[in-house]
Amino acid sequence: MTMKFFFGPHSCALASHIALEEAGADYEGVRLDLKAGDQSKPEFLKVNPKARVPALVTDRGVLTENPAILAYIAQTHPAKKLAPLNDAYAFAKIQSFTAYLCATVHVAHAHKQRGYRWADEQSSFDDMKRKVPESVSACFELIENELLEGPWVAGANFSIADPYLFTIASWMEGDGVDPQRFPKVLDHRNRMAQRVSVQKVLPHHA
Amino acid sequence: MTMKFFFGPHSCALASHIALEEAGADYEGVRLDLKAGDQSKPEFLKVNPKARVPALVTDRGVLTENPAILAYIAQTHPAKKLAPLNDAYAFAKIQSFTAYLCATVHVAHAHKQRGYRWADEQSSFDDMKRKVPESVSACFELIENELLEGPWVAGANFSIADPYLFTIASWMEGDGVDPQRFPKVLDHRNRMAQRVSVQKVLPHHA
Repeated sequence: MTMKFFFGPHSCALASHIALEEAGADYEGVRLDLKAGDQSKPEFLKVNPKARVPALVTDRGVLTENPAILAYIAQTHPAKKLAPLNDAYAFAKIQSFTAYLCATVHVAHAHKQRGYRWADEQSSFDDMKRKVPESVSACFELIENELLEGPWVAGANFSIADPYLFTIASWMEGDGVDPQRFPKVLDHRNRMAQRVSVQKVLPHHA
Repeated sequence: MTMKFFFGPHSCALASHIALEEAGADYEGVRLDLKAGDQSKPEFLKVNPKARVPALVTDRGVLTENPAILAYIAQTHPAKKLAPLNDAYAFAKIQSFTAYLCATVHVAHAHKQRGYRWADEQSSFDDMKRKVPESVSACFELIENELLEGPWVAGANFSIADPYLFTIASWMEGDGVDPQRFPKVLDHRNRMAQRVSVQKVLPHHA
Protein backbone atom coordinates (compact mmCIF):
# COMPACT_ATOMS: atom_id res chain seq x y z
CA MET A 1 0.00 0.00 0.00
CA THR A 2 1.21 3.50 -0.80
CA MET A 3 1.69 5.30 2.51
CA LYS A 4 0.28 8.77 3.06
CA PHE A 5 2.58 11.34 4.57
CA PHE A 6 1.00 14.46 6.09
CA PHE A 7 3.22 17.51 6.38
CA GLY A 8 2.97 21.28 6.48
CA PRO A 9 5.18 24.11 5.27
CA HIS A 10 8.05 25.26 7.53
CA SER A 11 7.41 22.40 9.95
CA CYS A 12 9.61 19.68 11.42
CA ALA A 13 7.82 17.21 9.13
CA LEU A 14 10.54 18.10 6.60
CA ALA A 15 12.84 15.68 8.45
CA SER A 16 10.71 12.60 7.87
CA HIS A 17 9.85 13.78 4.36
CA ILE A 18 13.52 13.86 3.35
CA ALA A 19 14.05 10.45 4.95
CA LEU A 20 11.15 8.99 2.93
CA GLU A 21 12.88 10.21 -0.23
CA GLU A 22 16.26 8.90 0.87
CA ALA A 23 14.64 5.51 1.48
CA GLY A 24 12.86 5.48 -1.87
CA ALA A 25 9.69 4.77 0.09
CA ASP A 26 6.34 4.18 -1.57
CA TYR A 27 4.45 7.22 -0.27
CA GLU A 28 2.27 10.09 -1.31
CA GLY A 29 2.72 13.50 0.34
CA VAL A 30 -0.30 15.42 1.60
CA ARG A 31 0.36 19.06 2.40
CA LEU A 32 -1.76 20.70 5.08
CA ASP A 33 -2.32 24.43 5.24
CA LEU A 34 -1.20 24.93 8.84
CA LYS A 35 -2.05 28.65 8.82
CA ALA A 36 -5.63 27.82 7.81
CA GLY A 37 -5.74 25.30 10.67
CA ASP A 38 -6.06 22.14 8.55
CA GLN A 39 -4.32 20.22 11.34
CA SER A 40 -7.21 20.90 13.72
CA LYS A 41 -10.04 19.99 11.36
CA PRO A 42 -12.08 16.86 12.16
CA GLU A 43 -10.83 15.08 9.06
CA PHE A 44 -7.19 15.32 10.15
CA LEU A 45 -7.90 14.75 13.85
CA LYS A 46 -9.06 11.28 12.83
CA VAL A 47 -5.56 10.74 11.46
CA ASN A 48 -3.70 12.40 14.33
CA PRO A 49 -5.63 13.56 17.40
CA LYS A 50 -2.55 15.56 18.43
CA ALA A 51 -3.34 18.01 15.59
CA ARG A 52 0.29 17.99 14.51
CA VAL A 53 2.48 16.99 11.62
CA PRO A 54 4.24 14.78 10.68
CA ALA A 55 1.86 11.83 10.46
CA LEU A 56 2.58 8.75 8.38
CA VAL A 57 -0.36 6.54 7.46
CA THR A 58 0.76 2.95 6.92
CA ASP A 59 -1.33 -0.11 6.12
CA ARG A 60 -1.16 -0.99 9.83
CA GLY A 61 -2.08 2.42 11.22
CA VAL A 62 -0.76 5.91 11.81
CA LEU A 63 2.68 6.82 13.10
CA THR A 64 3.52 10.21 14.60
CA GLU A 65 6.62 11.93 16.06
CA ASN A 66 9.77 12.33 13.98
CA PRO A 67 12.02 10.02 16.04
CA ALA A 68 9.54 7.15 15.66
CA ILE A 69 8.87 7.75 11.96
CA LEU A 70 12.56 8.12 11.16
CA ALA A 71 13.47 4.83 12.86
CA TYR A 72 10.53 3.15 11.13
CA ILE A 73 11.69 4.34 7.71
CA ALA A 74 15.20 3.04 8.41
CA GLN A 75 13.98 -0.33 9.68
CA THR A 76 11.57 -0.91 6.79
CA HIS A 77 14.19 0.00 4.15
CA PRO A 78 17.26 -1.81 5.47
CA ALA A 79 19.05 -1.85 2.11
CA LYS A 80 19.32 1.94 2.25
CA LYS A 81 21.37 1.74 5.46
CA LEU A 82 19.78 4.82 7.03
CA ALA A 83 20.61 3.56 10.53
CA PRO A 84 22.93 0.89 12.01
CA LEU A 85 20.15 -1.67 12.44
CA ASN A 86 22.37 -4.47 13.72
CA ASP A 87 24.27 -2.44 16.28
CA ALA A 88 22.09 -1.54 19.26
CA TYR A 89 24.61 0.93 20.69
CA ALA A 90 25.15 2.83 17.43
CA PHE A 91 21.38 2.86 16.85
CA ALA A 92 20.84 4.22 20.36
CA LYS A 93 23.36 7.01 19.75
CA ILE A 94 21.28 8.12 16.77
CA GLN A 95 18.11 7.86 18.82
CA SER A 96 19.71 9.90 21.57
CA PHE A 97 20.38 12.60 18.98
CA THR A 98 16.85 12.57 17.51
CA ALA A 99 15.35 12.65 21.03
CA TYR A 100 17.48 15.69 21.84
CA LEU A 101 16.31 17.51 18.71
CA CYS A 102 12.70 16.63 19.44
CA ALA A 103 12.54 17.28 23.18
CA THR A 104 15.08 20.07 23.67
CA VAL A 105 16.03 21.92 20.47
CA HIS A 106 12.59 21.96 18.82
CA VAL A 107 11.02 22.83 22.19
CA ALA A 108 13.42 25.78 22.68
CA HIS A 109 12.54 26.99 19.17
CA ALA A 110 8.80 26.57 19.78
CA HIS A 111 8.86 29.20 22.52
CA LYS A 112 9.21 31.85 19.83
CA GLN A 113 5.69 31.44 18.48
CA ARG A 114 3.92 28.81 20.57
CA GLY A 115 4.23 30.27 24.04
CA TYR A 116 0.46 29.81 24.48
CA ARG A 117 1.11 26.12 25.00
CA TRP A 118 2.81 26.84 28.31
CA ALA A 119 1.55 30.25 29.47
CA ASP A 120 -1.35 32.68 29.10
CA GLU A 121 0.00 36.23 29.36
CA GLN A 122 1.33 38.34 26.50
CA SER A 123 4.20 39.47 28.73
CA SER A 124 5.26 35.83 29.10
CA PHE A 125 5.10 35.26 25.34
CA ASP A 126 7.30 38.33 24.80
CA ASP A 127 9.75 37.14 27.45
CA MET A 128 9.91 33.66 25.91
CA LYS A 129 10.47 35.12 22.45
CA ARG A 130 13.39 37.24 23.72
CA LYS A 131 15.04 34.15 25.20
CA VAL A 132 14.96 32.02 22.03
CA PRO A 133 18.27 33.20 20.49
CA GLU A 134 20.04 32.30 23.75
CA SER A 135 18.35 28.95 24.43
CA VAL A 136 18.57 27.72 20.82
CA SER A 137 22.21 28.85 20.55
CA ALA A 138 23.02 26.83 23.67
CA CYS A 139 21.58 23.76 21.94
CA PHE A 140 23.65 24.32 18.82
CA GLU A 141 26.77 24.78 20.92
CA LEU A 142 26.23 21.31 22.34
CA ILE A 143 25.56 19.91 18.87
CA GLU A 144 28.65 21.64 17.39
CA ASN A 145 31.03 20.71 20.21
CA GLU A 146 29.75 17.35 21.42
CA LEU A 147 27.09 15.61 19.36
CA LEU A 148 27.79 16.10 15.64
CA GLU A 149 30.58 13.64 14.88
CA GLY A 150 31.07 14.79 11.31
CA PRO A 151 30.88 14.80 8.45
CA TRP A 152 27.45 13.30 9.22
CA VAL A 153 25.75 13.29 12.60
CA ALA A 154 26.77 9.71 13.33
CA GLY A 155 30.18 9.95 11.67
CA ALA A 156 31.13 8.55 8.29
CA ASN A 157 27.68 7.26 7.36
CA PHE A 158 24.61 9.29 6.46
CA SER A 159 21.63 8.39 8.67
CA ILE A 160 18.09 9.38 9.66
CA ALA A 161 19.62 11.86 12.12
CA ASP A 162 20.90 14.02 9.26
CA PRO A 163 17.62 15.19 7.71
CA TYR A 164 16.41 16.00 11.22
CA LEU A 165 19.45 18.15 12.03
CA PHE A 166 19.14 19.84 8.63
CA THR A 167 15.49 20.67 9.33
CA ILE A 168 16.09 22.24 12.71
CA ALA A 169 19.33 23.94 11.63
CA SER A 170 17.36 25.64 8.83
CA TRP A 171 15.49 27.58 11.55
CA MET A 172 18.62 29.18 12.99
CA GLU A 173 18.40 32.57 11.27
CA GLY A 174 14.70 32.86 12.10
CA ASP A 175 15.51 32.11 15.73
CA GLY A 176 18.14 34.87 15.87
CA VAL A 177 21.02 32.40 15.94
CA ASP A 178 24.15 33.21 13.92
CA PRO A 179 25.07 30.11 11.89
CA GLN A 180 28.66 31.35 11.52
CA ARG A 181 29.16 30.50 15.19
CA PHE A 182 28.58 26.84 14.31
CA PRO A 183 30.82 25.96 11.35
CA LYS A 184 30.32 22.19 11.55
CA VAL A 185 26.54 22.56 11.64
CA LEU A 186 26.68 25.09 8.79
CA ASP A 187 28.86 22.82 6.68
CA HIS A 188 26.44 19.96 7.38
CA ARG A 189 23.51 22.15 6.34
CA ASN A 190 25.23 23.12 3.10
CA ARG A 191 26.00 19.51 2.20
CA MET A 192 22.45 18.44 3.02
CA ALA A 193 21.05 21.20 0.78
CA GLN A 194 22.82 19.63 -2.19
CA ARG A 195 21.22 16.21 -1.82
CA VAL A 196 18.68 15.15 -4.43
CA SER A 197 16.19 14.22 -1.71
CA VAL A 198 16.30 17.69 -0.21
CA GLN A 199 16.06 19.46 -3.54
CA LYS A 200 13.01 17.38 -4.43
CA VAL A 201 11.17 17.85 -1.15
CA LEU A 202 12.11 21.36 -0.04
CA PRO A 203 9.96 23.33 -2.54
CA HIS A 204 6.84 21.66 -1.10
CA HIS A 205 7.72 23.02 2.36
CA ALA A 206 8.02 26.66 1.31
CA MET B 1 31.33 -4.82 31.69
CA THR B 2 28.93 -3.68 34.38
CA MET B 3 27.16 -0.57 33.08
CA LYS B 4 26.89 2.55 35.21
CA PHE B 5 23.48 4.18 35.41
CA PHE B 6 23.31 7.77 36.63
CA PHE B 7 19.99 8.92 38.07
CA GLY B 8 18.61 11.42 40.52
CA PRO B 9 15.66 11.45 42.91
CA HIS B 10 12.25 12.45 41.54
CA SER B 11 13.60 12.55 37.99
CA CYS B 12 12.53 10.91 34.74
CA ALA B 13 15.55 8.61 35.07
CA LEU B 14 13.21 6.36 37.04
CA ALA B 15 11.84 5.09 33.70
CA SER B 16 15.14 3.70 32.44
CA HIS B 17 16.01 2.48 35.94
CA ILE B 18 12.89 0.31 36.10
CA ALA B 19 13.58 -0.97 32.58
CA LEU B 20 17.13 -1.99 33.58
CA GLU B 21 15.61 -4.05 36.41
CA GLU B 22 12.96 -5.56 34.15
CA ALA B 23 15.72 -6.57 31.73
CA GLY B 24 17.89 -8.07 34.46
CA ALA B 25 20.68 -5.87 33.10
CA ASP B 26 24.19 -5.93 34.50
CA TYR B 27 24.40 -2.41 35.91
CA GLU B 28 25.30 -0.37 38.93
CA GLY B 29 23.18 2.63 39.90
CA VAL B 30 24.84 5.94 40.78
CA ARG B 31 22.58 8.45 42.50
CA LEU B 32 23.31 12.14 41.98
CA ASP B 33 22.20 14.80 44.43
CA LEU B 34 20.41 17.02 41.94
CA LYS B 35 19.57 19.67 44.55
CA ALA B 36 23.28 19.99 45.36
CA GLY B 37 23.97 20.38 41.63
CA ASP B 38 25.95 17.15 41.15
CA GLN B 39 24.74 17.07 37.55
CA SER B 40 26.61 20.29 36.75
CA LYS B 41 29.91 19.34 38.36
CA PRO B 42 32.91 18.79 36.06
CA GLU B 43 33.07 15.12 36.93
CA PHE B 44 29.56 14.45 35.66
CA LEU B 45 29.79 16.85 32.71
CA LYS B 46 32.46 14.52 31.36
CA VAL B 47 29.81 11.78 31.40
CA ASN B 48 26.94 13.92 30.09
CA PRO B 49 27.65 17.48 28.94
CA LYS B 50 23.88 18.10 28.98
CA ALA B 51 24.06 18.08 32.80
CA ARG B 52 21.01 15.83 32.98
CA VAL B 53 19.99 12.38 34.03
CA PRO B 54 19.51 9.64 32.95
CA ALA B 55 22.90 8.66 31.57
CA LEU B 56 23.92 5.08 30.92
CA VAL B 57 27.62 4.33 30.64
CA THR B 58 28.22 1.28 28.47
CA ASP B 59 31.52 -0.27 27.38
CA ARG B 60 31.10 1.57 24.06
CA GLY B 61 30.25 4.98 25.45
CA VAL B 62 27.51 6.99 27.12
CA LEU B 63 23.82 6.97 26.19
CA THR B 64 21.40 9.71 27.19
CA GLU B 65 17.67 10.43 26.73
CA ASN B 66 15.06 7.98 27.98
CA PRO B 67 13.66 6.96 24.57
CA ALA B 68 17.14 5.98 23.36
CA ILE B 69 18.12 4.18 26.57
CA LEU B 70 14.82 2.32 26.76
CA ALA B 71 15.09 1.03 23.19
CA TYR B 72 18.72 0.08 23.84
CA ILE B 73 17.78 -1.94 26.92
CA ALA B 74 15.06 -3.76 24.94
CA GLN B 75 17.37 -4.49 22.00
CA THR B 76 20.25 -5.74 24.14
CA HIS B 77 17.99 -8.03 26.22
CA PRO B 78 15.80 -9.56 23.52
CA ALA B 79 14.79 -12.58 25.63
CA LYS B 80 12.94 -10.25 28.01
CA LYS B 81 10.64 -9.10 25.19
CA LEU B 82 10.50 -5.50 26.34
CA ALA B 83 9.68 -4.31 22.82
CA PRO B 84 8.47 -5.95 19.57
CA LEU B 85 11.95 -6.08 18.04
CA ASN B 86 10.94 -7.92 14.87
CA ASP B 87 7.94 -5.75 14.02
CA ALA B 88 9.00 -2.30 12.81
CA TYR B 89 5.47 -0.89 12.98
CA ALA B 90 4.75 -2.10 16.52
CA PHE B 91 8.20 -0.89 17.60
CA ALA B 92 7.50 2.51 16.04
CA LYS B 93 4.18 2.79 17.90
CA ILE B 94 6.08 2.37 21.16
CA GLN B 95 8.67 4.90 20.05
CA SER B 96 5.91 7.32 19.12
CA PHE B 97 4.63 7.00 22.68
CA THR B 98 8.03 7.48 24.32
CA ALA B 99 8.73 10.49 22.07
CA TYR B 100 5.41 12.03 23.13
CA LEU B 101 6.23 11.58 26.82
CA CYS B 102 9.70 13.03 26.32
CA ALA B 103 8.91 15.99 24.05
CA THR B 104 5.38 16.96 25.10
CA VAL B 105 4.32 15.60 28.50
CA HIS B 106 7.65 15.97 30.32
CA VAL B 107 8.09 19.40 28.72
CA ALA B 108 4.65 20.55 29.89
CA HIS B 109 5.52 19.34 33.41
CA ALA B 110 8.93 21.05 33.33
CA HIS B 111 7.29 24.47 33.07
CA LYS B 112 6.35 24.20 36.73
CA GLN B 113 9.89 24.51 38.05
CA ARG B 114 12.19 25.02 35.09
CA GLY B 115 10.70 28.10 33.48
CA TYR B 116 14.18 29.69 33.49
CA ARG B 117 15.06 27.45 30.56
CA TRP B 118 12.69 29.38 28.33
CA ALA B 119 12.16 32.80 29.96
CA ASP B 120 13.80 35.30 32.33
CA GLU B 121 11.06 37.11 34.26
CA GLN B 122 9.49 35.95 37.53
CA SER B 123 6.06 36.91 36.14
CA SER B 124 6.59 34.44 33.28
CA PHE B 125 7.61 31.68 35.68
CA ASP B 126 4.46 32.30 37.73
CA ASP B 127 2.32 32.29 34.59
CA MET B 128 3.90 29.03 33.39
CA LYS B 129 3.38 27.42 36.79
CA ARG B 130 -0.31 28.34 36.76
CA LYS B 131 -0.75 26.73 33.34
CA VAL B 132 0.77 23.33 34.26
CA PRO B 133 -2.41 21.65 35.58
CA GLU B 134 -4.18 22.51 32.31
CA SER B 135 -1.38 21.60 29.89
CA VAL B 136 -0.43 18.35 31.66
CA SER B 137 -4.10 17.35 31.98
CA ALA B 138 -4.52 17.80 28.23
CA CYS B 139 -1.64 15.37 27.69
CA PHE B 140 -3.19 12.78 30.00
CA GLU B 141 -6.52 13.15 28.23
CA LEU B 142 -4.84 12.15 25.00
CA ILE B 143 -3.04 9.27 26.71
CA GLU B 144 -6.25 8.07 28.40
CA ASN B 145 -8.47 8.35 25.32
CA GLU B 146 -6.15 7.61 22.43
CA LEU B 147 -2.70 6.29 23.24
CA LEU B 148 -2.87 3.84 26.17
CA GLU B 149 -4.19 0.64 24.62
CA GLY B 150 -4.54 -1.24 27.88
CA PRO B 151 -3.85 -3.03 30.01
CA TRP B 152 -0.29 -2.02 29.04
CA VAL B 153 0.64 0.94 26.86
CA ALA B 154 1.11 -1.22 23.77
CA GLY B 155 -1.75 -3.60 24.57
CA ALA B 156 -1.41 -7.12 25.93
CA ASN B 157 2.35 -7.07 26.36
CA PHE B 158 4.40 -5.12 28.88
CA SER B 159 7.06 -2.97 27.18
CA ILE B 160 9.62 -0.22 27.73
CA ALA B 161 6.79 2.31 27.32
CA ASP B 162 5.23 1.21 30.62
CA PRO B 163 7.92 2.29 33.09
CA TYR B 164 8.06 5.63 31.28
CA LEU B 165 4.31 6.22 31.58
CA PHE B 166 4.46 5.14 35.24
CA THR B 167 7.24 7.66 35.90
CA ILE B 168 5.47 10.62 34.37
CA ALA B 169 2.05 9.61 35.73
CA SER B 170 3.57 9.62 39.23
CA TRP B 171 3.96 13.40 38.85
CA MET B 172 0.23 14.05 38.33
CA GLU B 173 -0.69 15.11 41.86
CA GLY B 174 2.34 17.39 42.10
CA ASP B 175 1.30 18.99 38.81
CA GLY B 176 -2.22 19.68 40.07
CA VAL B 177 -3.76 16.99 37.90
CA ASP B 178 -6.53 14.85 39.37
CA PRO B 179 -5.70 11.18 38.64
CA GLN B 180 -9.36 10.21 39.12
CA ARG B 181 -10.07 11.89 35.79
CA PHE B 182 -7.88 9.29 34.11
CA PRO B 183 -8.99 5.83 35.30
CA LYS B 184 -6.98 3.84 32.74
CA VAL B 185 -3.79 5.72 33.58
CA LEU B 186 -4.50 5.34 37.29
CA ASP B 187 -5.11 1.62 36.96
CA HIS B 188 -1.87 1.32 34.97
CA ARG B 189 -0.01 3.22 37.68
CA ASN B 190 -1.39 0.95 40.39
CA ARG B 191 -0.42 -2.21 38.53
CA MET B 192 3.06 -0.84 37.84
CA ALA B 193 3.53 -0.02 41.53
CA GLN B 194 3.14 -3.70 42.36
CA ARG B 195 5.92 -4.91 40.10
CA VAL B 196 9.09 -6.23 41.73
CA SER B 197 11.24 -3.95 39.55
CA VAL B 198 9.41 -0.84 40.74
CA GLN B 199 9.46 -1.87 44.38
CA LYS B 200 13.18 -2.46 44.17
CA VAL B 201 14.06 0.79 42.42
CA LEU B 202 11.56 3.31 43.78
CA PRO B 203 13.10 3.78 47.27
CA HIS B 204 16.32 5.01 45.63
CA HIS B 205 14.37 7.77 43.88
CA ALA B 206 12.76 9.21 47.01
